[in-house]
Amino acid sequence: MKLWDKGISIDNKIEQFTVGNDREIDIHIAKYDVIASKAHAKMLQSIGILSAEELEQLLGGLEVLAAQIEEGSFVIDAQFEDVHSKIEFELTKTLGDVGKKIHTARSRNDQVLVACHLYYKENLQLIKQKTKTFFDTLLGLAETHKDKLLPGYTHLQVAMPSSFGLWFSAYAELMIDDVYLLNAALKTVDQNPLGSAAGYGSSFPIDRELTTKEMQFSTLKYNVVAAQMGRGKNERTIAAALGSLANTLSRFAMDVCLYMSQNFGFVTFPDALTTGSSIMPHKKNPDVFELIRGKSNKIQALQSEMVLITNNLPSGYHRDFQLLKENMIAAFEELKDILDIFNYAIQQVIIKDIDLNDDKYKYLFTVDNINTLVFEGQSFREAYQKIGGQVQDGSYVPDTSKQHTHVGSIGNLSLNKIKAKFPEI
Amino acid sequence: MKLWDKGISIDNKIEQFTVGNDREIDIHIAKYDVIASKAHAKMLQSIGILSAEELEQLLGGLEVLAAQIEEGSFVIDAQFEDVHSKIEFELTKTLGDVGKKIHTARSRNDQVLVACHLYYKENLQLIKQKTKTFFDTLLGLAETHKDKLLPGYTHLQVAMPSSFGLWFSAYAELMIDDVYLLNAALKTVDQNPLGSAAGYGSSFPIDRELTTKEMQFSTLKYNVVAAQMGRGKNERTIAAALGSLANTLSRFAMDVCLYMSQNFGFVTFPDALTTGSSIMPHKKNPDVFELIRGKSNKIQALQSEMVLITNNLPSGYHRDFQLLKENMIAAFEELKDILDIFNYAIQQVIIKDIDLNDDKYKYLFTVDNINTLVFEGQSFREAYQKIGGQVQDGSYVPDTSKQHTHVGSIGNLSLNKIKAKFPEI
Amino acid sequence: MKLWDKGISIDNKIEQFTVGNDREIDIHIAKYDVIASKAHAKMLQSIGILSAEELEQLLGGLEVLAAQIEEGSFVIDAQFEDVHSKIEFELTKTLGDVGKKIHTARSRNDQVLVACHLYYKENLQLIKQKTKTFFDTLLGLAETHKDKLLPGYTHLQVAMPSSFGLWFSAYAELMIDDVYLLNAALKTVDQNPLGSAAGYGSSFPIDRELTTKEMQFSTLKYNVVAAQMGRGKNERTIAAALGSLANTLSRFAMDVCLYMSQNFGFVTFPDALTTGSSIMPHKKNPDVFELIRGKSNKIQALQSEMVLITNNLPSGYHRDFQLLKENMIAAFEELKDILDIFNYAIQQVIIKDIDLNDDKYKYLFTVDNINTLVFEGQSFREAYQKIGGQVQDGSYVPDTSKQHTHVGSIGNLSLNKIKAKFPEI
Amino acid sequence: MKLWDKGISIDNKIEQFTVGNDREIDIHIAKYDVIASKAHAKMLQSIGILSAEELEQLLGGLEVLAAQIEEGSFVIDAQFEDVHSKIEFELTKTLGDVGKKIHTARSRNDQVLVACHLYYKENLQLIKQKTKTFFDTLLGLAETHKDKLLPGYTHLQVAMPSSFGLWFSAYAELMIDDVYLLNAALKTVDQNPLGSAAGYGSSFPIDRELTTKEMQFSTLKYNVVAAQMGRGKNERTIAAALGSLANTLSRFAMDVCLYMSQNFGFVTFPDALTTGSSIMPHKKNPDVFELIRGKSNKIQALQSEMVLITNNLPSGYHRDFQLLKENMIAAFEELKDILDIFNYAIQQVIIKDIDLNDDKYKYLFTVDNINTLVFEGQSFREAYQKIGGQVQDGSYVPDTSKQHTHVGSIGNLSLNKIKAKFPEI
Repeated sequence: MKLWDKGISIDNKIEQFTVGNDREIDIHIAKYDVIASKAHAKMLQSIGILSAEELEQLLGGLEVLAAQIEEGSFVIDAQFEDVHSKIEFELTKTLGDVGKKIHTARSRNDQVLVACHLYYKENLQLIKQKTKTFFDTLLGLAETHKDKLLPGYTHLQVAMPSSFGLWFSAYAELMIDDVYLLNAALKTVDQNPLGSAAGYGSSFPIDRELTTKEMQFSTLKYNVVAAQMGRGKNERTIAAALGSLANTLSRFAMDVCLYMSQNFGFVTFPDALTTGSSIMPHKKNPDVFELIRGKSNKIQALQSEMVLITNNLPSGYHRDFQLLKENMIAAFEELKDILDIFNYAIQQVIIKDIDLNDDKYKYLFTVDNINTLVFEGQSFREAYQKIGGQVQDGSYVPDTSKQHTHVGSIGNLSLNKIKAKFPEI
Repeated sequence: MKLWDKGISIDNKIEQFTVGNDREIDIHIAKYDVIASKAHAKMLQSIGILSAEELEQLLGGLEVLAAQIEEGSFVIDAQFEDVHSKIEFELTKTLGDVGKKIHTARSRNDQVLVACHLYYKENLQLIKQKTKTFFDTLLGLAETHKDKLLPGYTHLQVAMPSSFGLWFSAYAELMIDDVYLLNAALKTVDQNPLGSAAGYGSSFPIDRELTTKEMQFSTLKYNVVAAQMGRGKNERTIAAALGSLANTLSRFAMDVCLYMSQNFGFVTFPDALTTGSSIMPHKKNPDVFELIRGKSNKIQALQSEMVLITNNLPSGYHRDFQLLKENMIAAFEELKDILDIFNYAIQQVIIKDIDLNDDKYKYLFTVDNINTLVFEGQSFREAYQKIGGQVQDGSYVPDTSKQHTHVGSIGNLSLNKIKAKFPEI
Repeated sequence: MKLWDKGISIDNKIEQFTVGNDREIDIHIAKYDVIASKAHAKMLQSIGILSAEELEQLLGGLEVLAAQIEEGSFVIDAQFEDVHSKIEFELTKTLGDVGKKIHTARSRNDQVLVACHLYYKENLQLIKQKTKTFFDTLLGLAETHKDKLLPGYTHLQVAMPSSFGLWFSAYAELMIDDVYLLNAALKTVDQNPLGSAAGYGSSFPIDRELTTKEMQFSTLKYNVVAAQMGRGKNERTIAAALGSLANTLSRFAMDVCLYMSQNFGFVTFPDALTTGSSIMPHKKNPDVFELIRGKSNKIQALQSEMVLITNNLPSGYHRDFQLLKENMIAAFEELKDILDIFNYAIQQVIIKDIDLNDDKYKYLFTVDNINTLVFEGQSFREAYQKIGGQVQDGSYVPDTSKQHTHVGSIGNLSLNKIKAKFPEI
Repeated sequence: MKLWDKGISIDNKIEQFTVGNDREIDIHIAKYDVIASKAHAKMLQSIGILSAEELEQLLGGLEVLAAQIEEGSFVIDAQFEDVHSKIEFELTKTLGDVGKKIHTARSRNDQVLVACHLYYKENLQLIKQKTKTFFDTLLGLAETHKDKLLPGYTHLQVAMPSSFGLWFSAYAELMIDDVYLLNAALKTVDQNPLGSAAGYGSSFPIDRELTTKEMQFSTLKYNVVAAQMGRGKNERTIAAALGSLANTLSRFAMDVCLYMSQNFGFVTFPDALTTGSSIMPHKKNPDVFELIRGKSNKIQALQSEMVLITNNLPSGYHRDFQLLKENMIAAFEELKDILDIFNYAIQQVIIKDIDLNDDKYKYLFTVDNINTLVFEGQSFREAYQKIGGQVQDGSYVPDTSKQHTHVGSIGNLSLNKIKAKFPEI
């Protein structure tokens, strides 16, 4: 069944190609189509297109569907082009002519668009919450391990002393920046697009402020052409935000994989979190962290897809936009999983003892030695030359006594200040 | 069941996260795992690890599985991590200890890698064949419509005369360049990687030339580290080749969509190939061509994903590589569909009459007018100034009599020469 | 001259390869290195490393350099590796040993990082201002042309009535979403990173709150590892924000190019804004809009570059980060130009008269016809079938009388509401 | 001076924006414009548009310019829009009216396109030669260091024995695949596009086979629309090929950086190849390899730019294409440098002694132990369980005696076979 059936049969091959896997994807937005349909029905009643009784009937029918969706029994059968056809069919089957009235003053593009806005808004909020949970976990680990030193590297070369406290809380603080982007994405989707119809509005005197309030959007995408052009724009913005968070997670996972290598040996995890090899019986591989990295990298690639599908298309709806949903929704589902599993796994980290007296680490402290000389009155450049000379002639002896005290340093992690910076959920 | 089970139970959450949807994807490579397993078994017999009788049994068992795969009854149940575990399990269930011997001198990485090479090789060849079919269709259309003029545009401004013959055969000739890239990808995957084991080869005296011949690879990826690093490299190369073809298809579809617009009105298609609107009863939308464009653009985005998953990873296997298969295989399946449907739909094109006497098209012929003056002895620059003056003062009268005769022009499409350039399949 | 010279000569080829074109790029950040150096010097005095007199001298020396930079006479000669070496050299040349002291308790990475934060912050604010100017221009054009109808398209097919008012203000409203991303980028860079030194902080008791205040940053990037990891993260975030705005500009330019085509003929521009052809004397090409589109698309590609340079690198500084600056700074300069020229050119738009009675546009009004029937009591689905039947049998007569009155529609553009949504500068 | 001047002055701001930095970029293609102009002139004489004497004069004039370009004295002054205007101006200044005749039967688009084909072809060949040089260097290093063992990693975990011979020659063999793509790119650009004029051919009876032969192209891009659509297609294909090679170089550089880390300590380089730190006097950083990696990653990002600039544009020339040249040419110049410097630096590698008896490496040999048991008659699965048990209970003793003998393994590098696979230059 199609919303636009006009008695001409569509070529079978063409139909199969155009419908694609919309039915499977649409399960994710079914809930939101019902929410928007309720708001639309209430508005139609308010402007006299539906009677109070008709509204009652429609709301009742929609609640039945909402319950089916909630419990998982709602299915979009092969005869329906998409979730929107299915829902209208069900309402009409149950309610007769009243069911047909729900499509007054809106179009299918409207429905897809507003359902996506609602799905994106709710899921961005979920991502933010899970990010906050992970952020808190990392700050907790930083506090617990704040006194454990770790070699700090630049250019992958041993450089200066770092600590597990610094390492864990660095990734926590970086996620604050990711939340700035998530918030920008939220602001973008938290605007009611309903009423744009096919992208040029309606000659019905629809009340868009009413639907805005009903669906709890903070404001409207006023201009109907702008609202329709949210297709693609929403997805590009979200992809940038999810990609940014994914980048932080990916890099953290990279560190974990490297630090688990026997050549670093800084951390390990219980056997139950590692994976074996089909030929090497000694292997305890960090597959979970590699997959966090790989899946996060995949999410970072989503931005290109969203841009390429929409770029250089003139204004107005194009069917291409239908392709945006699939990997966008998959990325949301994937990223929620990644945040859960990373948060679960990282809490089981086992910090290993690192012998900083090992020869390969002894130059970690040269800068501290220089600074001591500077405090004794030498210029930095002179002190640098002096310690450099000792390194070259082999007479260098590390001074491991220096404390780092400034804000944000190993001796003063300022975790509460970082915690306070996290934007409100 | 896992190939690497060593009696330690893996955390359930971790297992679910790491296995992901490998089982669904692996159905596509099951056939090729069987082919490679047969070759491997024959080789094991040739170096004395299997007896002739054991080989018989294994080949028999593998053929049973091949038949199941062919007829669609082969299923990878939830207890198996992937297709490779499942196949080994089936062989062992049927053949007992002999089944366990098949894994001698190879690793799972080996199996995934060689199965991907085989899948990619066969599917690249299929893509080439379908490209050739579409190429022939376009040359046929070019021949049929060679005399129908079409306005040619530069900067989207009316420029010079073109023709449908030129338009159809342009896209045909461009696909030849795409085939150069497909051939490069074919050369890349047409190298036997089997024997790289976990990426560092084997201490068994395996005969890699024998398996190369058995699986009909043209040559070996000799170095086992290089063979293993094909993970990612193969996919990036293929993504470049598929993306190139997709770009050609996408741009052709863009032209079709534009030419179907009422403002151009150059082509149309039977109603059964178009799609309607849920609110506008007059619409006959070119959804099929928009989806060809959009899906092709999605395929163009694949390259970024393949690069991002693998970039900056040190040599040696990483679990991240497991994520390459999903969208790579999806892209192959999608592109085969696109080629089929485009080839099917374009043959139904209806060329509309274009009135080149319409005012907006009259300047199409200014260059021909200039050239006439040049033949009469003026320099090009002088003739340009003269006709330009006529355009500006409104006295310009088009000269539509000029013939274009050079190779590759509207009057001399050289279709046979283009046809002869298509690389051998 | 190098900040790290230790008496070992560097291979010439290597030096040329590693320095690259840093000197040219660094001119853009020279101003900000001076600002940060002043703040750093004041802080050094506050913790007793510089005397009040030494501070005076350094501030004086830095102001001389600031003046040179301002007037364009500051040059980074070939003997210097980068702007930071040059500035320290100049201070030492003028002030002697005092000049050498400025590098106490900071590193070159520190300097690059804080200078980039300052450059990015100032330029993001400039971009926002120019966006606001363009936004106001578009709202002005929308108001001026609010009554001029324009065919609205979906699938590039004639769909429903739109207007120039709707078109101009749509792009204005879309830019509000771009500003959300610009603001997220601003929040990311508006954090003081100074004090991270080589990425692991300092054993000097530096006062990072003081430098934060001096440089007018809103807050600190507390964690020194997080501060250093801003290299790359800042650029990815900015690239997402600039790319988003560029996408809006690119699509608007695409519309302009299409609408200037003779086949649409909706707008034109004075001759002085168009470009000719070397062979076609009639051409008035919209090169400026094509280049806005193309340059904007180039800016959209920047995100991939920023991601690819940094992805999968373990934490800690890598020299690769030095490569982020070049195209990032180029994109800022380009985008400021694009906004200026687009704002300049669009004000000269000439709106052409569009004959909506032309046959190709007559179905623009079918939805309005349907809605009239609905108001008369028919269900939407029935009215749709009826008008659809008229379209098919040729009896359809457009009803052009319908007013669109709802918020955001052609009859009620709600420009003041859109204006009010623009985030504060 | 513009080739298309028609007496209307162009707005200054617009002109500056549209010309951009074309003059600087065009220096790279000046040489090729001269080559193509000579071929075009000879062809014009052959069809009677130029007299033999005029041809002499033009060839003479062009040779003067070729000499200036060769010696570096050729400059494109600010009064010229691009190199093509400049060359025509010079010819006309010297030769009078004869100079104006050279533009007969071609357009500026023609000139840019054919000059790019020639530049790309020559530079792709240069890249291939430099790749071959580097390939030979790596095979030489592999031969020299074939007996030096190296730990092999999977998942960044110690896995199985590898060797420096295997490592060096792996990257050599991978570059063969890159050459397949370079060859595909070469085939794409080794087709004469001259004669497409503005993209729709010419009404002059030009002899495109003659110019093909003169410029030593292997064949023609016959269809003039296809020839013009090479703009963008050429660049996307080349970007894929250069990006593929860059990926190989980037990953090799990543290995080098990792292996130089104190935690691996597998290789080092003379001091003159390393770089210091402004605050840490002990640092010898691998900046050159990090920049090889970073610059290679930047080249990998080029593909996105080339796609984004051209995607979804309808057929026919658009000014956007002018933007393709800048970063494409920069990438060629950069990649030639990278190949030179990598080839230069890698030859100075110092292989360090690795103590494989170190505890962290002892499990490298478990698979060899298993294989010994298999040779003694156990099934692989049983042997795997047995050695796995020893690893778990601490009784495992490595068997380091096993030889790897199969083709492509550490004991049988098959360097000659790899060498023989390199495609002909």
